[in-house]
Amino acid sequence: MRGDADVAQRYPDSLPASPGPRPGSGPRPCIPSADRLGGEVLAAYVGAHADDFLRALQLRNEDEAAAERVLRRSARRISAALHTYEPLVEAEWAEQLRSELGWLDSILTPHQRCAAQLARLRAALARLASVEGGDEGGDGTCSTMAIGAARAEALLERQLTLARTRARSSALQAFGSSRFHAVADSVTLLVSELPLTVSAAAPASQALVPLAASVHRRLAKAVQALPLPRAAHPYNGHARRAALVDLPSRTNAEAHATVGADKTADKTQDAPWHRARVLVQLSCYAWEVLDGTARPPDDWPDAAWLRGAALALDRHCQAADAATAAAGAARTPRITPATAYALGVLHGDQRSEVEAARYAFSCLWQGTVSRSEP
Amino acid sequence: MRGDADVAQRYPDSLPASPGPRPGSGPRPCIPSADRLGGEVLAAYVGAHADDFLRALQLRNEDEAAAERVLRRSARRISAALHTYEPLVEAEWAEQLRSELGWLDSILTPHQRCAAQLARLRAALARLASVEGGDEGGDGTCSTMAIGAARAEALLERQLTLARTRARSSALQAFGSSRFHAVADSVTLLVSELPLTVSAAAPASQALVPLAASVHRRLAKAVQALPLPRAAHPYNGHARRAALVDLPSRTNAEAHATVGADKTADKTQDAPWHRARVLVQLSCYAWEVLDGTARPPDDWPDAAWLRGAALALDRHCQAADAATAAAGAARTPRITPATAYALGVLHGDQRSEVEAARYAFSCLWQGTVSRSEP
Repeated sequence: MRGDADVAQRYPDSLPASPGPRPGSGPRPCIPSADRLGGEVLAAYVGAHADDFLRALQLRNEDEAAAERVLRRSARRISAALHTYEPLVEAEWAEQLRSELGWLDSILTPHQRCAAQLARLRAALARLASVEGGDEGGDGTCSTMAIGAARAEALLERQLTLARTRARSSALQAFGSSRFHAVADSVTLLVSELPLTVSAAAPASQALVPLAASVHRRLAKAVQALPLPRAAHPYNGHARRAALVDLPSRTNAEAHATVGADKTADKTQDAPWHRARVLVQLSCYAWEVLDGTARPPDDWPDAAWLRGAALALDRHCQAADAATAAAGAARTPRITPATAYALGVLHGDQRSEVEAARYAFSCLWQGTVSRSEP
Repeated sequence: MRGDADVAQRYPDSLPASPGPRPGSGPRPCIPSADRLGGEVLAAYVGAHADDFLRALQLRNEDEAAAERVLRRSARRISAALHTYEPLVEAEWAEQLRSELGWLDSILTPHQRCAAQLARLRAALARLASVEGGDEGGDGTCSTMAIGAARAEALLERQLTLARTRARSSALQAFGSSRFHAVADSVTLLVSELPLTVSAAAPASQALVPLAASVHRRLAKAVQALPLPRAAHPYNGHARRAALVDLPSRTNAEAHATVGADKTADKTQDAPWHRARVLVQLSCYAWEVLDGTARPPDDWPDAAWLRGAALALDRHCQAADAATAAAGAARTPRITPATAYALGVLHGDQRSEVEAARYAFSCLWQGTVSRSEP
């Protein structure tokens, strides 16, 4: 029981995908390189996260939300480590486990995502309906906050709570399934034993660093595909650009029912940023494995930089999600114009947040590029 | 006739309030200081603009829009010069003329403002409904642009065209009035004779520079009241903050009819920026009077800086106006939710433009402050 409370304390409200360095989990001494083998370092990392995973499972009855955060956090790190350092582990086994961890992630993600979306949209509506100085709204009686804002909030709450409830049912069902028990059994084995290949017997600096570096090269390549010079220019307006674009192949009648559109244009322009986010996370996790035991190449961004980049791209992802939710709510039949107006303002606001996140990431990236140049 | 065409050519489509340096109007030699008296320099400036004013009057039948731009431009400069350099001119007479020029400006402004608003909102809607790359909307047949965007545009066009037509009627009525003829007579006198005081007999550097400097001090003071550190931080979201705030003292029934609200909160936070804009314009005109004849103090921003600042604050004013128009259109009874949604997105977009303009001005100002510091 002490262990469970400890887990809850160590992860009070970490972001779903926050890639920060693991707060000292268990005895993982930082022996400086060379003395440790690649397999040993990898096994310690994977084992520690497998341990967290199992503790979180026990915690589920006490604090479901915190437990699910840790489960997702651990599952993602185990999966990423097995992916990045694949040549060090038994390939077939690793692929099988990663596929099952991916399934678990896909069960847990919607639940957490709905909650995060609702919180973000509520905060945005509160901001959009607030007045500074306290002349109006200060005492809560003399101000008439736009009816539309209140109705939009109620609508979003209804829709996202329903989605969240459904996601929770799926998660509960999954936790009771034999498929989940098989995943838990596999993770249990990871605590003590990681099936390694002969490559794992090399020193950490030789076995791990080149593989981590290749993740960073993939990230650099993905970032090259992003329109960074434009994004680094504040208020370029590009993320807001296609806010009123429909799906192309709809009939007129369907289009009538599709206020706010499916945001295909948003999705198209967001996709490369989402890809970069996944690779930043992989880089973060790859770095975490190395942390203190093997020195990464000099041109690799440090952990703090990666955390900043991951936060910017998390914000990008969350704002894009929230904008999509606002546009989706606007498609509800029979809403009032006031509600639709508020949802339109909200959509615009969140697309501005998307733009802001791109700006933050672009500045970070251009900073690190100029630093690593001679 | 040649003269009229010349005027039209010289002012092809200057912004309504663009404070650029006057493109060499008439023979106004740049004698470097000391040799010319303050009254002489001021009279030359006012006389040249009075001349433009009278030519524009003759041009009205040929190109109404261009003529009205020049009329406004000249009237503002004459009025500003009489204001800034008041001690050099007969006080009572100047005050009377400025009041009448203000009346003329208030007649001409709404007409031009409606046209500018409509152009801005149309461009924004086109941007919000456009897709890059040409996959969709490229050939114009396969894409179904949001019905809401099209309806919002039609609604705005209807409302702003109506407002513009009304403004034009008022302007036409004003041009036929005896009050306007009296203004034209006063301006005619200005071409050849400006009623000066004894202070005007001092050299330009003594008579004009201290008065111009005091305008700049007023500007600096007004800018101190602006939240520049926040505005210089991109994507601070402040200009979007109160997008969904109503007037405080409405009944519930009224509030129902008031989608999008009266933007009192917007107006409250915009007001100090509008004040700064007026003072930047005054500074521009004060500099124009000095231009080449007397040297302004070293800590005074140069003409190019003032033009940049004026452009940023013009953009602020136009975006704020456009946002208000979008919110106003959303208050139209019986619009569809799709139309209201598009207007909400549009409002958010224009408030982002407001934020962008504040950012641009803040960067400019902070640049000039750090430059003038030791």
